[in-house]
Amino acid sequence: MNLDSTLQPVLATAAEHAADVDAEGRFPAESVSALASSGLLGLTVGEEDGGLGGGPEQFAHVSSALAAVCGSTAMIYIMHVCGTMTALAAPPSGLPSLPSDLAAGRTLATLAFSEPGSRSHFWAPVSQAKRDGGGEVEFTADKSWVTSAGHAGLYVTSVLSADEPGGIDLFAVTGTEPGVSVTGAFRGLGLRGNESAPMRFELTAPDDRRIGQAGGGFGMMTDTVMPWFNLGNAAVSLGLARASFDAAVRHTGGATFQHLDQTLADLPTIRARLARMSLQLEAAGAYLHKTAASIAAPDETTPLHVLGVKALANDTALTVTEDAMRVCGGAAFSNHLAIERYFRDARAGSVMAPTADALYDFYGKAITGRPVFG
Amino acid sequence: MNLDSTLQPVLATAAEHAADVDAEGRFPAESVSALASSGLLGLTVGEEDGGLGGGPEQFAHVSSALAAVCGSTAMIYIMHVCGTMTALAAPPSGLPSLPSDLAAGRTLATLAFSEPGSRSHFWAPVSQAKRDGGGEVEFTADKSWVTSAGHAGLYVTSVLSADEPGGIDLFAVTGTEPGVSVTGAFRGLGLRGNESAPMRFELTAPDDRRIGQAGGGFGMMTDTVMPWFNLGNAAVSLGLARASFDAAVRHTGGATFQHLDQTLADLPTIRARLARMSLQLEAAGAYLHKTAASIAAPDETTPLHVLGVKALANDTALTVTEDAMRVCGGAAFSNHLAIERYFRDARAGSVMAPTADALYDFYGKAITGRPVFG
Amino acid sequence: MNLDSTLQPVLATAAEHAADVDAEGRFPAESVSALASSGLLGLTVGEEDGGLGGGPEQFAHVSSALAAVCGSTAMIYIMHVCGTMTALAAPPSGLPSLPSDLAAGRTLATLAFSEPGSRSHFWAPVSQAKRDGGGEVEFTADKSWVTSAGHAGLYVTSVLSADEPGGIDLFAVTGTEPGVSVTGAFRGLGLRGNESAPMRFELTAPDDRRIGQAGGGFGMMTDTVMPWFNLGNAAVSLGLARASFDAAVRHTGGATFQHLDQTLADLPTIRARLARMSLQLEAAGAYLHKTAASIAAPDETTPLHVLGVKALANDTALTVTEDAMRVCGGAAFSNHLAIERYFRDARAGSVMAPTADALYDFYGKAITGRPVFG
Amino acid sequence: MNLDSTLQPVLATAAEHAADVDAEGRFPAESVSALASSGLLGLTVGEEDGGLGGGPEQFAHVSSALAAVCGSTAMIYIMHVCGTMTALAAPPSGLPSLPSDLAAGRTLATLAFSEPGSRSHFWAPVSQAKRDGGGEVEFTADKSWVTSAGHAGLYVTSVLSADEPGGIDLFAVTGTEPGVSVTGAFRGLGLRGNESAPMRFELTAPDDRRIGQAGGGFGMMTDTVMPWFNLGNAAVSLGLARASFDAAVRHTGGATFQHLDQTLADLPTIRARLARMSLQLEAAGAYLHKTAASIAAPDETTPLHVLGVKALANDTALTVTEDAMRVCGGAAFSNHLAIERYFRDARAGSVMAPTADALYDFYGKAITGRPVFG
Repeated sequence: MNLDSTLQPVLATAAEHAADVDAEGRFPAESVSALASSGLLGLTVGEEDGGLGGGPEQFAHVSSALAAVCGSTAMIYIMHVCGTMTALAAPPSGLPSLPSDLAAGRTLATLAFSEPGSRSHFWAPVSQAKRDGGGEVEFTADKSWVTSAGHAGLYVTSVLSADEPGGIDLFAVTGTEPGVSVTGAFRGLGLRGNESAPMRFELTAPDDRRIGQAGGGFGMMTDTVMPWFNLGNAAVSLGLARASFDAAVRHTGGATFQHLDQTLADLPTIRARLARMSLQLEAAGAYLHKTAASIAAPDETTPLHVLGVKALANDTALTVTEDAMRVCGGAAFSNHLAIERYFRDARAGSVMAPTADALYDFYGKAITGRPVFG
Repeated sequence: MNLDSTLQPVLATAAEHAADVDAEGRFPAESVSALASSGLLGLTVGEEDGGLGGGPEQFAHVSSALAAVCGSTAMIYIMHVCGTMTALAAPPSGLPSLPSDLAAGRTLATLAFSEPGSRSHFWAPVSQAKRDGGGEVEFTADKSWVTSAGHAGLYVTSVLSADEPGGIDLFAVTGTEPGVSVTGAFRGLGLRGNESAPMRFELTAPDDRRIGQAGGGFGMMTDTVMPWFNLGNAAVSLGLARASFDAAVRHTGGATFQHLDQTLADLPTIRARLARMSLQLEAAGAYLHKTAASIAAPDETTPLHVLGVKALANDTALTVTEDAMRVCGGAAFSNHLAIERYFRDARAGSVMAPTADALYDFYGKAITGRPVFG
Repeated sequence: MNLDSTLQPVLATAAEHAADVDAEGRFPAESVSALASSGLLGLTVGEEDGGLGGGPEQFAHVSSALAAVCGSTAMIYIMHVCGTMTALAAPPSGLPSLPSDLAAGRTLATLAFSEPGSRSHFWAPVSQAKRDGGGEVEFTADKSWVTSAGHAGLYVTSVLSADEPGGIDLFAVTGTEPGVSVTGAFRGLGLRGNESAPMRFELTAPDDRRIGQAGGGFGMMTDTVMPWFNLGNAAVSLGLARASFDAAVRHTGGATFQHLDQTLADLPTIRARLARMSLQLEAAGAYLHKTAASIAAPDETTPLHVLGVKALANDTALTVTEDAMRVCGGAAFSNHLAIERYFRDARAGSVMAPTADALYDFYGKAITGRPVFG
Repeated sequence: MNLDSTLQPVLATAAEHAADVDAEGRFPAESVSALASSGLLGLTVGEEDGGLGGGPEQFAHVSSALAAVCGSTAMIYIMHVCGTMTALAAPPSGLPSLPSDLAAGRTLATLAFSEPGSRSHFWAPVSQAKRDGGGEVEFTADKSWVTSAGHAGLYVTSVLSADEPGGIDLFAVTGTEPGVSVTGAFRGLGLRGNESAPMRFELTAPDDRRIGQAGGGFGMMTDTVMPWFNLGNAAVSLGLARASFDAAVRHTGGATFQHLDQTLADLPTIRARLARMSLQLEAAGAYLHKTAASIAAPDETTPLHVLGVKALANDTALTVTEDAMRVCGGAAFSNHLAIERYFRDARAGSVMAPTADALYDFYGKAITGRPVFG
C-alpha cells in the first residue's frame, strides 16, 4: 500500500468541501464516503480481517493529513478507528459480520462514553445497567457528546456494569436499533461538521453484544481506547497546527505593504514568531513519532507517552494556531485564509476528554509514583 | 450624571440581543438606538455643544461595560466616539449642525482609514486626492474595514492631500452622499455585528468639509484619534476579558462532577489559573486607569501610555479569554456559556490597527529614543 | 519630609557597597547604618512614637528604590518594617523603650517565623511553647530562614501557644538574650547579603514579652504582617525588575556591532521585548499602587489585593529580569552589568513565603468563595 | 565500544568535583583528565586516525550525560570536539601529529572566534591578518570568550583573511606559542569552571597552519563548526534541564510539610508543572535525536535542523530549570540541591553565540525563503 497515493483522492474531496462543512456545520458525507472507498476506514484492521494492516504510525499520518484539510473529517476518522479497534479487541459474537464491515468501511464506528453527570471524565459513566428478568441487560444512558451522532453504524457505549459492581461494561450498539436517538444539536466553536451531539441509548441488550468481559470496560478504555484516541487526537492537533503554520508562511510572504514595498515576512518580529512556531511543531511532531513507535512496540514507558502526547500536541496546537492568527492579523481574522478555521478546530482537541489538563494531572501522578487514576 | 444608571437600560438592551447579533452577524440596531436615547453617544462631547462632558475615564468605563454584554455594540461605540472627537477637534464649517447632531446621538460617526494597499498601517492612505478644475477636491478611496459600514451618518475619511505633498487630509463625509458605497461584506471570527466592511468613497468634496488644515491629518490621527481609539479599544478588550473571567468563575463554581461530588473550582489547578487571570485583569485594569487619567491631564508620558495601553489590554484579553475557555472546557467550547463569544470578540481587538505588534514596535522605539513613526 | 531627599544619601551608600555585599555575601552594614541615620527605619512609625508617620505608599516607594540599588538592603528593610509594625500593633509591656528604639532606628527588627518542619508555610510553626512552673513560657524554636540573623535587635518569633491549643503566640525576643543563636549559614542564589540564616530560640519568656493576646499570633500574621510583607516584597521585586529593565535599555542602546554599525536596540525583536517588559512593569506597578492605597484605606477588597500583589510582582520580576538577561546576552551573563545580580535577587522574592504559588492558591480560594486558609 | 561503561568513570569523577568547580570557578582538571583517559576526547575522530569513530548521536549522548553532572566539563568537551572536527576537516600540514594527538586526547582543543567588536556574531571577526614581507601572515586578534582559555593545546582561531578580501581564515594555534595570552578573567552566572576568558593572539603564522583554503573559514564555520557546536550545545542544555527535572521530582516527592503530613508532590499544581516540564524535555529530546540523525545522514533539511536545535534546546532549558527552581522553592534557591547550579549553567547555553535569538532570526529567514546570513 502506498499510503499517500491512497490518501490523495480523499484529501482532494475533503478539501473541496471543508469550508462548506464548517460554514453550515454539516456532516462531511462526501469525505467520509471517500474514506470508505479508499479503504482507509480499515487502515488499522488486520489484513486477516480484510483491513490494510497499518499501525499507529500510519494512523497518525492519515489523521494529520486529514486534519490539514478538514478537521471534522479527521475527528470522525479517529473516532471510527477508536470504535473499530475497541470492538475488534474482543469482537461481540452477536454481531458476526462486524469485523469485516468495519474493515471494509461499510460500518462507521464511534464511541459513546461521556455523560453530563461525569462531564469530561469519560471513563466514569454514571448510567447504571441492570439485569432484566430474562437475562438481558437494560440501560438508559444519556451521552453528552457523541461524534458522528446519527451517522454512525456502530456506537461503542459505556455503562456501569449490571454484573460487576463499580465496573464498566462496553456494548456494541448499532445505529438502527430502536432506543437509539440523537437528543440534541451541537453548535461549537470548531469541528462544526463532526456532528458531535448528545444521544440517548435506551436499550435492552443481550450479553453477546458486550465487548470483552463483564466489568472489563475500564481496562479496555485505558489499554485500547486511550492509546488510539490520544495518538489520533494528537495527530489531528498537529495536522491543524501545521496547516495553519503553512498558511501563515504563505500569507506573510505574499502580503505586501504597498507604501513600503515590504511584505509581512520582511519584519524580523514576524519571522522570529514563525521560527518558534516551526520549532514547536518539529518538537511535538518528533515526540508524536516516538509515541507512535512506542505504541507499536510497547514497553514500560508506553503508558506515559500515551498520556503525554495528547496534552503536548493539544497545547502546541493552541499556541501555534494563535500565533498564526497573530502574524496574519486581519486577513486571518476575517476568514480570507483557512487559518481561522484551523484555529477554531484546534480548540476542540484540547477540550475532548481526557482534556489536556486532566492528562497533565495523570502524567504528573505517574512521574511522581502515584496511582494514575487514583 | 449618574453614569451607571444612564448605562443600565443600554446594557439591558444590548444583553438581550447580543447572542442573536453574533449568531446572525447583524448590526445591533436596538443597542445603538438605546445608546442614542441614553445620551451616551454624546458622552465625551462638551456640555457647551450639548454633550455630557465626560472624559477618558468615563469613556473607558462605558466601553468596558458595553463590551461585557455585546462586543459589537462596544466597538461601534468607540468608533463613534473617535469619529466624533476628531470631527469636533476642528469642526468643518460645511456641516454646521454636525456638533449638535453628534452630541445628541442623531448622527452615528465612524472612521474610514485603513486601505487594502497599506493594510494595517491605517495612518498611511495610498488614495490620492486631486484638485479638480473648480477648486474642489476629488478622490476615490477604497477602505478595507469600516466599522458601522452603511449604518453611520458620518465617515471621517483619510486621503493623501491634494495640497500638501505626502500629507494626509481628513474629510467629513456623510452617509447619504452619492459616491459612498459599501463594496463588500465581512464575516470574521468575532465582533460579527459591527458591520465592519469595505467601502468606496468616490467623491468631489469642497474644502469646507476638510477637518483641520490641509496636510494636518496625520497630526490629528496621533493627537486625537490614537488616544481615544487606543483607550477605548483597550477598555473593550478588558471588558470582554473580565466578562469571560466572571463567567468562568460562575461556571467552575457550579459545574459538578456528579460521581465525585466535586466542582471544577475544587481543583487547585483550576483555581490557580483563575487567580492568575484575575491578577492579569487587575494589573491591566490599573494601567488602563492610569492611562485614562494621563490622557485627561496629559504630560510627557502620555504618548507612551497611549501606545502601550492597547497592546497590553489586547494581549491580556487574548490570554484571559483563552484561559476562560480552558477552565470551562467543553461547556465553553460548545457555546452554552457566552465565553466562546467573548473569546472570539477579544481576538478582534488585537488585529485592529494599530495592531498589538505594531504598538510594541512603536513603544520600543519610543523607550529606546528612536523616532516612533520613523 | 521630602522622601526622595531623605532617601538620596542612603541610596548612594547602598549603591557603593552593593556589588561587594553580593560578591562576599556579607551583611550591608553601611547601608543599614545609613538607613538608621536617615530616619527611614522609622518611616511607618507614627509621629507620636517618634517616627515619620509614613504609610504603605511611602513604604513601597522606599522599598523599590532600595531594591534598585541593593536587593539585600531592601529585604532587610522590609523585614525590619514588618517586625516593627507587628511589635507596635500591640507593644509588649516588658520592653517599654521598644517603640521609640524602633522609631529611631536604634533597634533593627526582623521576623523569625519559618521552620524546617512546616517549610514555606510560615504561618504554621511546629515548635510548641509550654508553661514552666513559675508562670513563664518555655520553648525551643528552630527557625529556618531569619533575615538579618545575628544582626537584628528584635526577633518577632512565633511558637505554638502554651495557652491556646492550636493557636500561635508571637514573642518579642531581643538579640542579646541567652538562648538566641545563629545555627547555620546561608549561601543562596541571590540576596546574598541579607544574612538569611537558620536560628535557634531556646528561651524562657515572661508573658509581658508576648505581642498581643495568647493565641492571637495567626490573626496578627494575616492582619499586620501579611499586608506589610507582601506589599514590601512586591515593591522589592518591582524595584529589582525596573532596575534590570533600565540597565537593559542603556546597554542595548549602547552596545555596538562594530562590523554592522548597529546597536542591539536597532533590532526590532529586541525592541519588542523591551516594550513588553516595560508594559509588564507599568501594569504591575499600577496594581502595586492600587494595593498600597487599599491597605492605607482598607475595604472588603483589601485582603484580596494583599494576597495578589506579591504573586503578581514576583512573577513579573521573574519574567522581566529573565528578559533583561536575554536581550543583553553575554554582557549580562558575565557580570559586566548589574543585571545578573538583579536577576538572582529577584528569584528570592518568589520563594519567600508565602510563595507566589501559595498565594495563587489562597487567591484562587478567595475568588471562588472558599475559606482562604482552609 | 560500550559508550555508557566508557562514560561511567568520567561521570563519577566529574560528579565528585562539580560543586567545588562551580564554587571556586576553577577549571575541572580532574574531569578533563578523566575524559582524556577514557578515550572520549577522540569520540568523533575516525578510527583510521585513532579515534572511536562515533557520530553525532554518540556525541549528543556524551554531552548530555556530562552536563547532567558538571556543566563546565560538558562545555569544555563540546568546544574540544568542535575544534577537533574543524581541524580534522582539513588538517594543517604544519602540525602533522595533530590528528593523532586530538584522537588520543593528548591535545585539548577549543575555538577562538568571538571578538569584542562583533560581539555575539562569532562568524564575523574584525581582526585583520596581513602578509608580512617573508610570506607569512601576521595578525593580532583579541578574542572575547575562549573556553578552556590557557588550558587548551589547540586554539582554532579566526581572522579576516590576508589573501581573500572579506573572507575569513582559520588558523591552528597551539597553546605554547609566544604571542598567545589570556588577557582577562571570567566570572559569570554559570559554567563558572569552563575558564571562558578573553585571549589575545599576536602571531606570525606560516601558511601551513591554516585550516582549509584561504578565505574558506566562513564555509567551515557553517558546514563543520555549526552542526557540531549547535548539536553539542543543545545536548548540554537538555542534559542540564533533565538533571534539574530529576532533582525536582526527587525533592518534591521527599520534602514534607510536617504539619500536614503531605509532600510537595501531593499538590496538584506542582504535579502539573512537573508534567509540563517532562513533556517539554521529551519533545525537545525527540527533536535533538532527529537532528543528530539528520547530521549523521544529511539531506536538504539538515541545515534548518542545525539552526533550530540549539534555539529550541536552549529555551527549553531556560523554562525547565526555572520551573525546577520554582517547584522546589527555598530548598533549590538556597543551594541544598544542585538545581540552582543547573539553573545558572543553563543560562550560559542561550547566550553562547549563535544566541537563541540569532538562531530564530536565521531560521525564520530560511523558512520564508530569505538568505540566512544576508
